Amino acid sequence: MSHPIIFDTDPGVDDAQAIAIALRHPEIELLGLTTTYGNVDIETATHNGLLLCELAGRGDVPVAQGAAGPMVKPRHPAPAHIHGANGLGNIELPEVKGKKDPRSAAQFIVDTVNERPGEVTLVAVGPVGNLAAALQLDPALTEKVKRVVIMGGSVREGGNVTPVAEANMFNDPHAAQRVLTAGWPLTLVGLDVTHRCVLTPAHMQRIEAGQGELGKVLAGSYAFYRDFYREFLGIDGCCPHDSCALAWLLRPELFTTAPGHLAVITEGLAEGQTLFAPEGRDFIQERWSQTPLAEVCLEVDGEAVVEWITATLG
Amino acid sequence: MSHPIIFDTDPGVDDAQAIAIALRHPEIELLGLTTTYGNVDIETATHNGLLLCELAGRGDVPVAQGAAGPMVKPRHPAPAHIHGANGLGNIELPEVKGKKDPRSAAQFIVDTVNERPGEVTLVAVGPVGNLAAALQLDPALTEKVKRVVIMGGSVREGGNVTPVAEANMFNDPHAAQRVLTAGWPLTLVGLDVTHRCVLTPAHMQRIEAGQGELGKVLAGSYAFYRDFYREFLGIDGCCPHDSCALAWLLRPELFTTAPGHLAVITEGLAEGQTLFAPEGRDFIQERWSQTPLAEVCLEVDGEAVVEWITATLG
Repeated sequence: MSHPIIFDTDPGVDDAQAIAIALRHPEIELLGLTTTYGNVDIETATHNGLLLCELAGRGDVPVAQGAAGPMVKPRHPAPAHIHGANGLGNIELPEVKGKKDPRSAAQFIVDTVNERPGEVTLVAVGPVGNLAAALQLDPALTEKVKRVVIMGGSVREGGNVTPVAEANMFNDPHAAQRVLTAGWPLTLVGLDVTHRCVLTPAHMQRIEAGQGELGKVLAGSYAFYRDFYREFLGIDGCCPHDSCALAWLLRPELFTTAPGHLAVITEGLAEGQTLFAPEGRDFIQERWSQTPLAEVCLEVDGEAVVEWITATLG
Repeated sequence: MSHPIIFDTDPGVDDAQAIAIALRHPEIELLGLTTTYGNVDIETATHNGLLLCELAGRGDVPVAQGAAGPMVKPRHPAPAHIHGANGLGNIELPEVKGKKDPRSAAQFIVDTVNERPGEVTLVAVGPVGNLAAALQLDPALTEKVKRVVIMGGSVREGGNVTPVAEANMFNDPHAAQRVLTAGWPLTLVGLDVTHRCVLTPAHMQRIEAGQGELGKVLAGSYAFYRDFYREFLGIDGCCPHDSCALAWLLRPELFTTAPGHLAVITEGLAEGQTLFAPEGRDFIQERWSQTPLAEVCLEVDGEAVVEWITATLG
């Protein structure tokens, strides 16, 4: 079975690997990339999206540019110490030949989903402003997408940019609250599972060997990203956050999920936190259980996911 | 070594067991109980405090009444389905003979700590309004207490009254924010450890046999509390939350703690949540790491704690 997807992304080192999977995997039909600020500014995100497609020999894939910043709050600086100023570990990059799609990311999503109602899965691995903007253009998208898969959030794992918030949700908490409570079929792939997946240098060597020109970019940017993990987290390897969203889509049996109600805190010290109220669990008041049900990944076979990523690209 | 303590409490079934430990343990010098609303209303809390001391033959222990509600917010209803309307599982209780101390709980804390500067540990196992009120009377208490041990909060475990908030913190988040960030030597004993401790019916039989008249009240109220655990949590047994605070004081080697910065959310869906920023961990901004350092229990040998409780009372 093939999965037609739109991949919403802020590439970013781990985004680049996930884009490579979306371009290569025989069961994924990549309808287009939509770009957002986040790991990098929006122009860099779009540049990298175009470049990665071209390096894979897939310059035909549309790349539509979207949000340059959050819906409501000021933008946080891009984390150049993690992804490099160019989003790909500051390695030297070839020229981009193609051009971005003339439509906004939100319009591209609306058009593409409406062309194939019930078929398209949105996979979003950055701040989710483009999905919120698409809902603003066409609220009935909630009935027309097949599913929405979000890399973001954290239930029990704690945060990576604050004690409780994951970076994508923190970067635009208002968009996240809109998207996570929209009532479409939604799966959240957050730090509870992505932190269980560690891609080692040995895995990356296999990927580099398997991906030609694209492999050189993936491996070069990985080396930079790995320095961050070593210095700040004491791990020799990286969490392939964004690839995990695709792993869930293609190999859901590797994950344990639970249904429940999500909400995103927009203000105060907890801003960007994803609150998860498991379905059927009573709390002291009903206000945590009034949003539509979503599905949240809580556990994963991390080794199997990393092996799946490596086998897909190796 | 003996620990002079003031035990701040809202008895409550698990409070009753902890009070019994405080009254019985040879290494605890119980200087007094201070009472708060929480599991029960304030009059019931004071009544039960007096009663439990008398049943242990310790009618000499002062019981000073304190907060009847939160500092800022409206009061939430007492959880009669957990502790019973009378706080002790709706069992029939003997008459109380003694009278409460004429001072407020806050004044009792201030007086008692100032009589023995540097010696007294405050152990608080309900909403912490009395400690906040004591700080209002004498801010220099922070330099005069030996330590403050709080049963409350949750770091990774999630909440018990909301998806993220533990009941004591949720009941008075403003008091909790004041107390947890006051800068006194503070240890937080929260759900991350209390949920690892399960007191079974077999343990309770040993406690009942060891405690005479008091044992009958502990066992009778336990039976009611156990029904709640069975029905709502699917556990045959109870978490002895409040006794864990004393277990940490007397047997700290059974716990794994970490230093860090605490904050309590006071508004919105995350209200009552305790945020913990581990010492030395960098987050995207410094605002999570600006409160004084405290110590937080993250792991525990739960079986050993339950055995310690049972051996103390059995």
